[in-house]
Amino acid sequence: MMETPYYLIDRSKLAANMAKMDYLREASGAKCLLALKCFATWPVFDTMRDHMDGTTSSSLYELKLGHEKFGKETHAYSVAWADHEIDEAVSYADKIIFNSASQLERFDNKTANIKRGLRLNPGFSTSGFDLADPSRKFSRLGEWDVEKLHLYADRISGVMIHYNCENDDFDKFSTQLERIEDEFGSFLQKLEWVSLGGGIHFTGENYPLDKLAARLKAFAEKFGVQVYLEPGEAAITGTASLEVTVLDLLENEKKLAIVDSSVEAHMLDLLIYRESARMESEGEHAYMICGKSCLAGDVFGERSFKEPLKIGDRLSIGDAAGYTLVKKNWFNGVKMPSIVIKELDGSLTLCREFGYDEFESSHG
Amino acid sequence: MMETPYYLIDRSKLAANMAKMDYLREASGAKCLLALKCFATWPVFDTMRDHMDGTTSSSLYELKLGHEKFGKETHAYSVAWADHEIDEAVSYADKIIFNSASQLERFDNKTANIKRGLRLNPGFSTSGFDLADPSRKFSRLGEWDVEKLHLYADRISGVMIHYNCENDDFDKFSTQLERIEDEFGSFLQKLEWVSLGGGIHFTGENYPLDKLAARLKAFAEKFGVQVYLEPGEAAITGTASLEVTVLDLLENEKKLAIVDSSVEAHMLDLLIYRESARMESEGEHAYMICGKSCLAGDVFGERSFKEPLKIGDRLSIGDAAGYTLVKKNWFNGVKMPSIVIKELDGSLTLCREFGYDEFESSHG
Repeated sequence: MMETPYYLIDRSKLAANMAKMDYLREASGAKCLLALKCFATWPVFDTMRDHMDGTTSSSLYELKLGHEKFGKETHAYSVAWADHEIDEAVSYADKIIFNSASQLERFDNKTANIKRGLRLNPGFSTSGFDLADPSRKFSRLGEWDVEKLHLYADRISGVMIHYNCENDDFDKFSTQLERIEDEFGSFLQKLEWVSLGGGIHFTGENYPLDKLAARLKAFAEKFGVQVYLEPGEAAITGTASLEVTVLDLLENEKKLAIVDSSVEAHMLDLLIYRESARMESEGEHAYMICGKSCLAGDVFGERSFKEPLKIGDRLSIGDAAGYTLVKKNWFNGVKMPSIVIKELDGSLTLCREFGYDEFESSHG
Repeated sequence: MMETPYYLIDRSKLAANMAKMDYLREASGAKCLLALKCFATWPVFDTMRDHMDGTTSSSLYELKLGHEKFGKETHAYSVAWADHEIDEAVSYADKIIFNSASQLERFDNKTANIKRGLRLNPGFSTSGFDLADPSRKFSRLGEWDVEKLHLYADRISGVMIHYNCENDDFDKFSTQLERIEDEFGSFLQKLEWVSLGGGIHFTGENYPLDKLAARLKAFAEKFGVQVYLEPGEAAITGTASLEVTVLDLLENEKKLAIVDSSVEAHMLDLLIYRESARMESEGEHAYMICGKSCLAGDVFGERSFKEPLKIGDRLSIGDAAGYTLVKKNWFNGVKMPSIVIKELDGSLTLCREFGYDEFESSHG
């Protein structure tokens, strides 16, 4: 039995998402690029490569990873490139997308020979979290002044507009896209391509894929552009869990189960966004599932079971793919979860284990 | 010039903290163990080793690091040990401190030959953050029932009571220690040692070290125990900065400077506790200092300068030692800061650089 903790990525679930990806690409004509900021576990890229058009990135390292491990089309975006990065970035990229006109100016000569874009900030978004809202006050993300954008129309061939965040409401998406058409249409029609970014939850259950495809197709035709999507979560939602073992059982007004993992080290967004882990409850034995780090608030959430828990029981914590493995860290020296793949035949492949030497070496 | 980003650890500042450490140890008789959960950058342990009595830990890996890289006395604490860890833990530890009576029971035989302790939760703390408050409702940290503790008096030789958090108020410390004396005194006098944990900010400016020393000495004499402290932040406060470079300058109601780092990847607690980085302002040119990750809320804080910033300017972000390097991660593939030591003669030693290969290898 595989030693916990480990992230378990299920290829068959990934394939199910990829089937929807194919359907959307086919029906809409849009290209789909995996957003590596959300998920960069390259040992499963072979299950994704035939069903997506490439990758997009947030840094030089993600760009290189996308180029080398995924291949196909590689979009290079970064909030800011450093002088010493730009030549290497250009060497990997099909398109480079600048966050600001000032970055485009700075690297104008060095990027004259590849397709370029700018990030357009439409001034609104679907994010309910201020932390994740690109249209928050004083946002540094993208250009929003359409007059200014027009000045760059001859130097760029497209724009990236990332403004959705786990948006599972097609009507909201469509209405907001209409605003973009109205406010930026005169500029968009000068372009060859428009990326609508990520954050559209189109692989979710009951999402009206056909409507989305038709909407994207109409948008593409209206402005004569190639549409890109940059799915992160939508590509890998529901495909991974964090597998843990119960180490101790306590009681302090509630029953507490301590597992061999930690929210802060292994599932950081639960802490940052103060959310609870996705765990299915069944039965009447309720426990608070807690991590083993020193942090008082290291709590995954509450869950009920049919039988009382025992030390040694294994638990599966859902929703562990997106923005999870990419943020794992050595807080408290808690053993970093291995990366395990559930193959299509159900067998498990241990593809990466992290040990003491790496913990030591992370500090000096 | 050293390429940014890098954490810069200053040996002379560390030595200044160590002088206070020596003073307190000498005057109080208390032993001081470095809390590795806060700071584990072992290349500077040689500046600390002669002035502290050893280390304490939160996991098997921290325990091993303390044993191998620091030496001297090694306390082994963990919220929960796994069955497969306990023999190895005993092999490194001078004392093993269990979080719960159930863990002590579980590993009673395997730990019979070394000194043992339990964590005592006094039911109050100084933490202003629920997340970091060990006495929060439903806390899983330690035993609090004095009747239950008495049952284990013959199997343990001491307790660890960690309930302070950046407490720079001596009177508050003293009053709370009085509560501990009153409520747990009958139990404490059965013990050989009592660790009062970390979180006492005794290396801060104007902290009344003499009063603290006298108070600890009186406590030790009253109960006939060896007192331990487990300083984390107090050992390394003010000794490190995060050195970054300005990559882009924008304006969106405020002036924005984007630097080659990221709060989430390199200074995580600013995000978790929603705080601003420590940066000294001088002058009238105000900027919001922002990270380069995709996160909309990747903001270090606001700072004013005498002159307008230029691209390429270097900034120093303070307070980067405690709970900072131990949490760094590869979010967004932002280059992980190198670890650089400022030697006593002012020269800089690059002691660790993190590159693309490690980013790639963190994912598979």
